[in-house]
Amino acid sequence: MVDRESEKKLAARHAVGYVRDGMKVGLGSGTTAAYAIRLLGERIEREGLEIVGVATSTASSELAISVGIPLVSHLDEFELDLAIDGTDRVDRAGRLIKGGGGALLHERIVDGAAARFLVIGDASKLVDPLGSQPISIPVEVFVLGWKNTLRRLERLGCKPKLRSVGKIPSLTDEGNYTIDCGFDSFDDSLKLANLMRSTIGVADCGLFIGMATQVIIARSTQIEEFTVGACW
Amino acid sequence: MVDRESEKKLAARHAVGYVRDGMKVGLGSGTTAAYAIRLLGERIEREGLEIVGVATSTASSELAISVGIPLVSHLDEFELDLAIDGTDRVDRAGRLIKGGGGALLHERIVDGAAARFLVIGDASKLVDPLGSQPISIPVEVFVLGWKNTLRRLERLGCKPKLRSVGKIPSLTDEGNYTIDCGFDSFDDSLKLANLMRSTIGVADCGLFIGMATQVIIARSTQIEEFTVGACW
Repeated sequence: MVDRESEKKLAARHAVGYVRDGMKVGLGSGTTAAYAIRLLGERIEREGLEIVGVATSTASSELAISVGIPLVSHLDEFELDLAIDGTDRVDRAGRLIKGGGGALLHERIVDGAAARFLVIGDASKLVDPLGSQPISIPVEVFVLGWKNTLRRLERLGCKPKLRSVGKIPSLTDEGNYTIDCGFDSFDDSLKLANLMRSTIGVADCGLFIGMATQVIIARSTQIEEFTVGACW
Repeated sequence: MVDRESEKKLAARHAVGYVRDGMKVGLGSGTTAAYAIRLLGERIEREGLEIVGVATSTASSELAISVGIPLVSHLDEFELDLAIDGTDRVDRAGRLIKGGGGALLHERIVDGAAARFLVIGDASKLVDPLGSQPISIPVEVFVLGWKNTLRRLERLGCKPKLRSVGKIPSLTDEGNYTIDCGFDSFDDSLKLANLMRSTIGVADCGLFIGMATQVIIARSTQIEEFTVGACW
């Protein structure tokens, strides 16, 4: 039986092994990134590791504080040595889809400020090429005229659905809505990302193309690691 | 002597002449659009014109209310018959630069929801092609990591400057910052718009390409009008 949680933890542990004293580290969002944050907290406690963290969401910020990672709060300008973040899906070229747990904008800004951006995941997250299986891509949209935006997204060939809890639309950290765009498949990830991001009413989308520098996937007890070139 | 204010008013009057009973009308932001809003108020008072307005900014909303234009407040979904908005610069192909008085995002969403989007301006606003003279293009950016975003924008070949009053950065209606990007000239407006909008940390930019359907320029006492095809 495959234990996804063990894989997540293994991938997180491998990524956290790259962190050195003095580094400024981007802290991702989601369950896999949460393992990395906890493991960083352990290294701080056990080894006296000295780092400074920058969180990608209110959730990761709260977790980081709870495990003793000092956080930078003045974020006018920052260059990170490393960012570690999870993913909903990634391919061997380092193209990835973020699940959009309410923090897409922050994740892109923080992960995009890192010299090295490590994407971590269990084996189920590796799908190559990225668009070869059905998936839902989250798109963060402004509340004003969101139904217009939904219709525009539909024209990109997906089934769009407003993310909500019961009848209440879910709000992102930035106070926006999220529309989950279900695709049976898609071809050109970069083109799709650009189309989504240039759609009127869209704040950001879950396609992160050309940002990852390293992909770390745990399969059972093994690590698969791919180095890719970021183009930002 | 050229009287820009008379030209603005003339262009606004011409555009307001297209408004008919029963229309849902997008109300632009800025000094020229303000003339259009006041003239719509006059038509409501004198002719009993029946329209509903959708404002592009808090400023245009307040002005519209003060002159008696009924506004729609539920904006989940809306299709406008017409939008009237001013511009910092426009060319004969209807490509335009919005000045970014704090409402770029709303302007794009509202103007983009109109079947017909009329751009109005005095003669100084017509520069053809759009990038043939020095200009500053406003870019709305998220506060988080704005200095990183400024550096990225600089790489597009401009001199970027944070908009501020004294030492206090100006906030947009959405709570973002504005970076004014000074260009000596630029060639491909659409490419530049896409590059700006896909830059990490950017919420929106002042380049509105493929959105206008009609350009109305007043030169002294004459109207120059161009019909263009929107591609959104």
